[in-house]
Amino acid sequence: MRQSNLFMPTLKETPADAVAKSHQIMLRGGYIRQVTAGVYAYLPLAYRVLRKAEGIIEQEMDKIGCTEVLMPHLLPATLWEESGRLSKYGAEMFRLNDRHGRPSLLGPTHEETFTEIIAKNLKSYKQMPIMLYQTQTKFRDENRPRFGLLRGREFVMHDGYSFAASREQLDAQFDAQKAAYENIFARCGVEVRPVIADSGTMGGKNSTEFQAPAAAGEDTIATNETGTYAANLEMAVSIDTFKQEPEDPKALEKVATPGQETIAQLAEFMHVPATRIVKSVLYIVDEKDKVLVLIRGDKEVNEVKLTHALDCDSLRVANDDELKAITGAAKGGVGPIKAAWADKIIADETVKGLSNFVVGANETGFQYANTNLDRDFKVDEFADLRTANEGEPDPVDHLPLKFITSIEVGHIFKLGTYYTETMGAKFLDQNGKAQPVIMGSYGIGVSRMLSAIVEQHQTEHGVAWPKEVAPYSIHLVQMKMNDDAQTDLANKLYDELSKKYDVLYDDRKERAGVKFADADLVGAPIRITIGKKAKDGIVEVKQPTEDKAQEMSVDELKAYATELLG
Amino acid sequence: MRQSNLFMPTLKETPADAVAKSHQIMLRGGYIRQVTAGVYAYLPLAYRVLRKAEGIIEQEMDKIGCTEVLMPHLLPATLWEESGRLSKYGAEMFRLNDRHGRPSLLGPTHEETFTEIIAKNLKSYKQMPIMLYQTQTKFRDENRPRFGLLRGREFVMHDGYSFAASREQLDAQFDAQKAAYENIFARCGVEVRPVIADSGTMGGKNSTEFQAPAAAGEDTIATNETGTYAANLEMAVSIDTFKQEPEDPKALEKVATPGQETIAQLAEFMHVPATRIVKSVLYIVDEKDKVLVLIRGDKEVNEVKLTHALDCDSLRVANDDELKAITGAAKGGVGPIKAAWADKIIADETVKGLSNFVVGANETGFQYANTNLDRDFKVDEFADLRTANEGEPDPVDHLPLKFITSIEVGHIFKLGTYYTETMGAKFLDQNGKAQPVIMGSYGIGVSRMLSAIVEQHQTEHGVAWPKEVAPYSIHLVQMKMNDDAQTDLANKLYDELSKKYDVLYDDRKERAGVKFADADLVGAPIRITIGKKAKDGIVEVKQPTEDKAQEMSVDELKAYATELLG
Repeated sequence: MRQSNLFMPTLKETPADAVAKSHQIMLRGGYIRQVTAGVYAYLPLAYRVLRKAEGIIEQEMDKIGCTEVLMPHLLPATLWEESGRLSKYGAEMFRLNDRHGRPSLLGPTHEETFTEIIAKNLKSYKQMPIMLYQTQTKFRDENRPRFGLLRGREFVMHDGYSFAASREQLDAQFDAQKAAYENIFARCGVEVRPVIADSGTMGGKNSTEFQAPAAAGEDTIATNETGTYAANLEMAVSIDTFKQEPEDPKALEKVATPGQETIAQLAEFMHVPATRIVKSVLYIVDEKDKVLVLIRGDKEVNEVKLTHALDCDSLRVANDDELKAITGAAKGGVGPIKAAWADKIIADETVKGLSNFVVGANETGFQYANTNLDRDFKVDEFADLRTANEGEPDPVDHLPLKFITSIEVGHIFKLGTYYTETMGAKFLDQNGKAQPVIMGSYGIGVSRMLSAIVEQHQTEHGVAWPKEVAPYSIHLVQMKMNDDAQTDLANKLYDELSKKYDVLYDDRKERAGVKFADADLVGAPIRITIGKKAKDGIVEVKQPTEDKAQEMSVDELKAYATELLG
Repeated sequence: MRQSNLFMPTLKETPADAVAKSHQIMLRGGYIRQVTAGVYAYLPLAYRVLRKAEGIIEQEMDKIGCTEVLMPHLLPATLWEESGRLSKYGAEMFRLNDRHGRPSLLGPTHEETFTEIIAKNLKSYKQMPIMLYQTQTKFRDENRPRFGLLRGREFVMHDGYSFAASREQLDAQFDAQKAAYENIFARCGVEVRPVIADSGTMGGKNSTEFQAPAAAGEDTIATNETGTYAANLEMAVSIDTFKQEPEDPKALEKVATPGQETIAQLAEFMHVPATRIVKSVLYIVDEKDKVLVLIRGDKEVNEVKLTHALDCDSLRVANDDELKAITGAAKGGVGPIKAAWADKIIADETVKGLSNFVVGANETGFQYANTNLDRDFKVDEFADLRTANEGEPDPVDHLPLKFITSIEVGHIFKLGTYYTETMGAKFLDQNGKAQPVIMGSYGIGVSRMLSAIVEQHQTEHGVAWPKEVAPYSIHLVQMKMNDDAQTDLANKLYDELSKKYDVLYDDRKERAGVKFADADLVGAPIRITIGKKAKDGIVEVKQPTEDKAQEMSVDELKAYATELLG
């Protein structure tokens, strides 16, 4: 491609509203433009990267016998009613009515659509195992779209679905997909960690996320030094090492603590450590049940773990009005003693070994000191409800946990029969008996992966694209367009190299500074500068991560390109 | 691909609700499944055809320097307010509000999006000419989606946009696109006719449709035997050859015609030919103006021509209540005499040469006989407002017009500055003066084209795919899976042929009848049957359009495939 024909509207200044580095680079390089909040146009450079990533996905899916299809974006709401997810999905789902008033939605994911097709068209165990996938635009009405392609409202996703007649088939499919995903990320140049993950609204119990470490990430993974344990923080097991010295129970005492709301304030005011205070948080569960959650003062409630422990669809902290109406006390004053209003009291395991601790008195500005479990109140259930802390021992090798900020680029799920049972996708087994199909689902955020690649491969002035996804493999930059020797050599190289590689030829009448600045943003694995020594057949060659270019002859250049690019 | 791994849910029976032959074949062959009205899933076979067609488009666009991008599906309504099309588009547009209540829409076409990007990112004549395109899912809430992929509510479209600094540049871009489109359709195996077309809500005055003749088509084209003239019927020039003998004006006479509403009834009742009756149709234009349209009784009003003549955004025939309220007469009784309520009276040219004709008396059940132009009423404007009739002379060579039913598969427009002026997309010309960018827009209904291909290439029991878009180029059909000689030969051919061609190998344990029936639906250009003579290295070879297979050796087969497929 001649750069004079390329629509690549670069920006000299970094847009003020772009926070993430990848977002800045993609705006400055003319890769993307925002059309409306969280919704982007992919201009030629970004589209080339997107297509190359999609091509890699196609190849790797083909290798494992996963076949490509294309499902609609527009889905009837009835399909999601069948699975029970219509109500669960909430405000993140774009909903609309068609001209006849029929409720429809824009697919945020496609388990229902695939399950329905399978339910209607697959009959026998002989037709399985089967795997299908698509690469398609998805829609989620994020409350706070941000960071460019990292959290968009419209995004490109690869989503695959596996259908099996047995658990063994599912396991083999899951393993094949996992291996394919590792190949895909490696070929796209994204460093990823497979981590234990929450299945969320997807259903199923067993899922693995692929997390790409990056400063702009919105996720945190908890791992150890050797990588033998890695989990999304929201799922990371917390091993609590604190032990309170045994004490005899003292008499319960009501203490006035006017204006003290937080654990830190109470600890200061009452002269006790946070580990001697039990925090009581009232949750509204599935919009009906009042569940009081207890946790030691130095720990935080992990709502993912709480959701799993309660096996509920939704939960939220009660707001101030609800708190007052239900418990009679304001924030900081709520506690488990005489809490008959609670449908359930559930406590984190850190509460178990405590004695003579502080809890709210269900009266604004009052606490009970010297509270003791069982004597003063009962807990219905104990569980690990806390967010792990950095430095805690990991559950595998007991090495200290460390936290890494990262981007979720992939997620694979063993769904089991979650969808197929509710939606009636059954097959006849070898004995002629109807069984629910066993399902897996697999996804890569393709457009988000573009951001992850740029995050991980940013340079001082641009990006160094990994070779398989680079918009162009070679960038030919001619210094002076009115120098015939340069033009001749540039044209010759352009013609020859284009036979084998994607070559961008900067044939614009621009200053060298402009050309180099743009080349940093194009980020081709090899930049060839054609300058003064063109008449001697000498060019300058540089990779984006190198500070200095090296001179080489045209023959040396070809060997160099073959070695680097194949 | 081994057919045992292919998800191709065939149907034995033709679904009762599928009318178009292409729809029937694609359902029976497991190509597509409906997810909701007018919204389809593309299963593996259809997806392969779709991708091959997209690949051909990519190649042809690349050749003319048109670069691929991807715009969002979800668009802010404000963008369409800017162009003035938000109100024009009507019920066909899917509209929704996001979680913050901001009005959004699903893009039915993308002139606005591209114009906006250009307005913000293109500054100088030096950056033009430029052409961009995308292949993307589009949404139109059709009132009556039907015929499978022919008229869907969600469909795959290729849409291109050109931006020029001069009319000459636009002409060159338009010609290049037109030539590329002809290549695309030829390579996809679709016979098309470029015809004069209406630009409709797209704006601009100059547009060409590519129409694919097919029984299931919803369009009619008017052409002559030699093809020197071809127009969409809604735009076809009508040359009226009827001449009334000159007569002296007679005295106007009011005649009671109780219960006679239609032209046929009136002609019968009044003993006059239809050519002596002038039909008066009241239109509500842009929802405010009352326009009375006059046309000779044997002709029909063409609303596209009327829209152009009135240069309006919308028009519709007044309903019965409006008719009564405005004219005082019911249907059949309306006429131009003393029609002071009409904001305008416009007449088709066929009214011009008439004398002593019949018109409605603006009184239910009454007509005026012996009406004469100018003496009894005045016409504000004459124009060609009629639909051409088959057999009329064409306007180029005066050969008889003949009508062909066809499918619109492509449409290209010289838009000019329609969008760029309203949306402020300006560039600085060579003199540093700001000028509106000159635009063209180009579209192919890619998923609709699949239907057109099947319509044009249907066989008695399936389809004969053109070679460049066939889901598989070669279909290897093994008769007996437990015959080792057959299996050995099939595997050998599968491995060898797969190096060069897309091969589908029917390795299923099914009866020959089932395999052949499915092969008719797969429609590969070459079917190779491996049967009894496998042990002698002899196979049977057949093209889908041939009745009988021919025997050949493996060597002969290779030469045959090379000749047919390259």
